[in-house]
Amino acid sequence: MLDSAISSVSTRDARFPLPPGAGTDSVHTNSEYSFAVTLLTGDGGLQGTGIVLTLGEGNRLVCEAIELLARPLVGTAIEELMSDFGRVSRKLADDPSLRWLGPHKGIVHLALASITNACFDLWAKSRGKPLWKLLLELTPAEVLRLLDLSYLEDVLSERDALELLVSQVPSRSRRLPILQTGYPGYDTSVGWMAYDDEKVRDLTARALHSGFTAFKLKVGSEDEGRDIRRAAMLRKCVGESGTLMFDANQRWSLPVAIRMCRELMDFQPLWIEEPTHPDDLHGHALLAREITPVKIAAGEHIPNRIVFKNFFE
Amino acid sequence: MLDSAISSVSTRDARFPLPPGAGTDSVHTNSEYSFAVTLLTGDGGLQGTGIVLTLGEGNRLVCEAIELLARPLVGTAIEELMSDFGRVSRKLADDPSLRWLGPHKGIVHLALASITNACFDLWAKSRGKPLWKLLLELTPAEVLRLLDLSYLEDVLSERDALELLVSQVPSRSRRLPILQTGYPGYDTSVGWMAYDDEKVRDLTARALHSGFTAFKLKVGSEDEGRDIRRAAMLRKCVGESGTLMFDANQRWSLPVAIRMCRELMDFQPLWIEEPTHPDDLHGHALLAREITPVKIAAGEHIPNRIVFKNFFE
Repeated sequence: MLDSAISSVSTRDARFPLPPGAGTDSVHTNSEYSFAVTLLTGDGGLQGTGIVLTLGEGNRLVCEAIELLARPLVGTAIEELMSDFGRVSRKLADDPSLRWLGPHKGIVHLALASITNACFDLWAKSRGKPLWKLLLELTPAEVLRLLDLSYLEDVLSERDALELLVSQVPSRSRRLPILQTGYPGYDTSVGWMAYDDEKVRDLTARALHSGFTAFKLKVGSEDEGRDIRRAAMLRKCVGESGTLMFDANQRWSLPVAIRMCRELMDFQPLWIEEPTHPDDLHGHALLAREITPVKIAAGEHIPNRIVFKNFFE
Repeated sequence: MLDSAISSVSTRDARFPLPPGAGTDSVHTNSEYSFAVTLLTGDGGLQGTGIVLTLGEGNRLVCEAIELLARPLVGTAIEELMSDFGRVSRKLADDPSLRWLGPHKGIVHLALASITNACFDLWAKSRGKPLWKLLLELTPAEVLRLLDLSYLEDVLSERDALELLVSQVPSRSRRLPILQTGYPGYDTSVGWMAYDDEKVRDLTARALHSGFTAFKLKVGSEDEGRDIRRAAMLRKCVGESGTLMFDANQRWSLPVAIRMCRELMDFQPLWIEEPTHPDDLHGHALLAREITPVKIAAGEHIPNRIVFKNFFE
């Protein structure tokens, strides 16, 4: 084990154009999948890489935020950093000048995510093992020290968190087979917003053929009838045993979300994703009651652990 | 009235160093007051200026976000823009690539605020009158068209908003004297965190002498006893008739906020500002009940109208 110190931080604005129509949804119509990449170079030549996704324009802003936020990491030994990463994360996020630009949300939070990924990557590389293996070998106390639980004290003290982790240790062996079998995935690429019906049907048939049983469809069309028609078509393609998810990408106002979710329930989705603005806590709570037993999927744009705390409450 | 079209957008990263200790609070210890300035140049040579405050580092990021977000304004006539500014604001904020970086929060939201200010400034200049006068001369329907009320439909329809505006028109003449007398201000510069007791006493005495009757003190010290001592001192300086406000700048966890607010209530503050993380909706609701009748001031970091809707609920 080499305790490599971080000698420099750099970034890369990596962009990947998509084929026509791919990646489109009700609000994101011209996406170019882009990563704001953090590169942490260790003094032994190792390089930790972290990424965060954006949709093109503005990816450079996240890279610049990374360069500002990650400066305090230079000169720190990676083992020292990761032995108390919860405190380190909090300190980075609470930079006295940059905190104002969030706090803990938007571009700054995306940048912190990329930096965090790079720290974990460099740590695993310096230990010479895959990250999942490194994480599995940590004690509950070591896991706890990776986490910033500040502002959660009212619902989750450090002691509660430790107990939770310790309580899961005895059943670990029962969960290990997942390493052999993996988690089932779903196909999100059959149902982009700009695809016509024929393309959706073709792609679904191909995905079914290659073994997929779960599919996501973008909803939130200008023409609401189109959403219903596409949902019916996809349900017909995958049969009663297939699993469907619908994703509105925040498009609907709350009244429209209630109405559309009720109509879409006819097609037995497992969940409806991002039905309205991600900041509307009370709206989500109300909607969840209205459309039970269909679940709401959220989180892609819930900005931080404090908002998650409120959502759980 | 000249219907000037916007011929270019530029920005300025304006920074103003502060004297030692000024601007310090419990989380912002090295502020340089900075403005991300939007400059909209009209084709007749007029210039609209908009600003938004940051604390130094990262001000450049807001300028760059302005340059990306404001591009669609170029070539638009200012009267056309302002005749439907609600729709324009929504369109700018929902840029298909840049929306991902918020949505509607953090750097992107700061940038939109600066752009909005510049649009209003250019509008008033092109009409050749102060903005306040321009706004007072608008009809309720024209005011409504300045606002983006999307995602508020469940609590405030356009019709409700219009009724609210119309209902205030008859009593307008009773509110006009404020134009002569102005609003009373408070002095926030007596109680910065890094100031020692002597400096706080001196500045307060001077402010009292020049007619101020209301004062803000920064709280959230590492040493909680220091907050109590400073609060007692300031109450003594301003007497029973003076008005005090305390500002913790988001420093406290919820349990600490409850305890500290209870202790600080002894000094009869009008409000306690930003006691905990600004995203903690339920935390604020709980705290407000715990410390009645003292009020909580919030909003400086509540990111957008959707979160405000939840806070009001």
